Amino acid sequence: MDREKVQIFDTTLRDGEQVPGCKLDTGQKLIIANRLDQMGVDIIEAGFPVSSPGDFLSVVEISKIVKNAIVCGLTRAVKNDIDVAAQALKYAKRPRIHTGIGTSDSHIIYKLNTTRKDIIERAKYAVSYAKSFVEDVEFYAEDAGRTDNEFLAKVCEEAIKSGATVLNIPDTTGYCLPEEYGAKIKYLKENVKGIDNVILSCHCHNDLGMATANSIAGAVHGARQIECTINGVGERAGNTALEEVVMIFKQHPYLNLYTDINSKQLSEMSRLVSESMGMMVQPNKAIVGANAFAHSSGIHQDGVIKNRSTYEIMDPLDVGVNESSIVLTARSGRAALAYRAKKVGYELTKVQLDIVYVEFLKFADIKKEVVNDDIHQIIECCKIQSELIRS
Amino acid sequence: MDREKVQIFDTTLRDGEQVPGCKLDTGQKLIIANRLDQMGVDIIEAGFPVSSPGDFLSVVEISKIVKNAIVCGLTRAVKNDIDVAAQALKYAKRPRIHTGIGTSDSHIIYKLNTTRKDIIERAKYAVSYAKSFVEDVEFYAEDAGRTDNEFLAKVCEEAIKSGATVLNIPDTTGYCLPEEYGAKIKYLKENVKGIDNVILSCHCHNDLGMATANSIAGAVHGARQIECTINGVGERAGNTALEEVVMIFKQHPYLNLYTDINSKQLSEMSRLVSESMGMMVQPNKAIVGANAFAHSSGIHQDGVIKNRSTYEIMDPLDVGVNESSIVLTARSGRAALAYRAKKVGYELTKVQLDIVYVEFLKFADIKKEVVNDDIHQIIECCKIQSELIRS
Repeated sequence: MDREKVQIFDTTLRDGEQVPGCKLDTGQKLIIANRLDQMGVDIIEAGFPVSSPGDFLSVVEISKIVKNAIVCGLTRAVKNDIDVAAQALKYAKRPRIHTGIGTSDSHIIYKLNTTRKDIIERAKYAVSYAKSFVEDVEFYAEDAGRTDNEFLAKVCEEAIKSGATVLNIPDTTGYCLPEEYGAKIKYLKENVKGIDNVILSCHCHNDLGMATANSIAGAVHGARQIECTINGVGERAGNTALEEVVMIFKQHPYLNLYTDINSKQLSEMSRLVSESMGMMVQPNKAIVGANAFAHSSGIHQDGVIKNRSTYEIMDPLDVGVNESSIVLTARSGRAALAYRAKKVGYELTKVQLDIVYVEFLKFADIKKEVVNDDIHQIIECCKIQSELIRS
Repeated sequence: MDREKVQIFDTTLRDGEQVPGCKLDTGQKLIIANRLDQMGVDIIEAGFPVSSPGDFLSVVEISKIVKNAIVCGLTRAVKNDIDVAAQALKYAKRPRIHTGIGTSDSHIIYKLNTTRKDIIERAKYAVSYAKSFVEDVEFYAEDAGRTDNEFLAKVCEEAIKSGATVLNIPDTTGYCLPEEYGAKIKYLKENVKGIDNVILSCHCHNDLGMATANSIAGAVHGARQIECTINGVGERAGNTALEEVVMIFKQHPYLNLYTDINSKQLSEMSRLVSESMGMMVQPNKAIVGANAFAHSSGIHQDGVIKNRSTYEIMDPLDVGVNESSIVLTARSGRAALAYRAKKVGYELTKVQLDIVYVEFLKFADIKKEVVNDDIHQIIECCKIQSELIRS
């Protein structure tokens, strides 16, 4: 089977930006957009132009500078939203309007206070109207994760007839489990007329920690676009993390799916977004967390020193991290201590190592992390003691 | 079908603690262990007793104070490790020894430099020897995620024959995808003699962001214990997050699986572990992140104000968060502004709201978050302007 490409739709500047405490100014957004473009992102969602004058301006400026990626603007299924988005995107080499409406009963009844029939009409209108400005129109069925598949298929079919090129199936509330979300994509692939002429897209939220797993399940069942953000930032518990998606396809070639992202830029990209937004990344974040390639337990260190593959499935260089680190703590073993002692200039015999290790543990039980200077001190201290005993 | 219980095995104090920069002292460990016990955790892995005198002491003291949970100590398949663990656990009401050895080819060849035959012998010895001290012996097949299923089944069968009560199938390197990990558990359920008399356990790492999804897949296919940590802390990208597992079973009753965790304590537990370890939780962390129940985009706020279920699948109270928050930013809409204005004392007409909203957006495009004082200021400012115009 030929490998198929999954397009990466980055929404760091739209869904990622709409997070309490992390608004970016236009200058910062331009720097991030430029870097996303260079990293190989296929589509950059630049903002929600009607939402504020500042966001409108950002979409205009991003449209001007992006060289390769499609630039996308979000709208509701509302005429004015679409007018404003089209205007904001007019400088884009490859513009896309992303329009849509809620399709779950919860959204239809409580938020929109209308009927399924009306939803379909509004969807058709929005897609057709957007199509009068741009060729590339993506339709989202908001809360698709909680929409029954039969109605969802109907809405999708109408969106395709109205000219949609991409169908976004968002799990807006982060409700689905992977099997369920994958089955939803499969159902649409099998039941929507014209589905093979458009791209199905996964847009998953992380409320239950399932965003990445759901997106991968979607791709396995036929979706060919994944909407994601750097560091998984986004509304509430965030979106699918771009870096996780990219590395899963890379580490699991049997899936026969790939992206065009240059993974070596992931680590730097993560830092740029985290610092610009003032949104920190926890040390145990997959791929880009500070500890993602750090080994501190003795059992693991022993393995990694013998052969990296025993505890590492990725080469740190592949994500732009120079090397994995061996961190010395009270959970470290003799192998790691000997390895580090050698690095700082001491070749210890087995007997010497046993002596030094006992002192090392006493020290490490009190101090969180043992650094090179501590190693010098511990070994020199042991030397003096043993000389005193001998003399 | 009757609902079945999945036991929660918390390893915050063992796998979670072995993280660079987050060693806990014995006093802190006792506080955490006590709270885990109160929250309904079934098994507390208290440490790796042979690793250091400090860790030994912690396991002893935790064993003394835990009232309900099983207290577990980790060992390698090494006589001295097991002796020391048995000694550390002697005060536990319900002690468990957790012993095991690497079973993947990578571990057998590169780390242990031995043969499959020898691995089976060592596994048998370790389980039998541990069994001479305690009734409850858990066996781990390290790197089971990359071990071929046929050999894994053989090792498991021998561990059962030797007296193991629980079989832990760790995806040590965080390599598996949910379908693959679920299939592994299913294979063992179907191919290991005596498997129905023991408990299968999932222990997953998060290197590709799949730890929780893999654990859930394991439980769906027959595992009845999940090993996890608060906030997902742990070696490298961490372990399965306890809070995610608990809430997934709670929000997906059709799985017919449940845990005995009091979810209302999750939020406070997360804070305690984060503060004690000095390991921060990112704002977009599922369930326990600061933004997990915060809404800032206009579309979402409008929905939540009308009916919480439109954008929230969980009641914040269920995880111990008092209420979801509506955060005003440049992405907020008129609905949220009117809602907040009313809360701080202004009942705005539609026309007034339109005027105030324009000023609000100008303000919000510059300031990241608009707080109550700002709302007062903006509205008062609009009042003065309109009075000036009128006069």
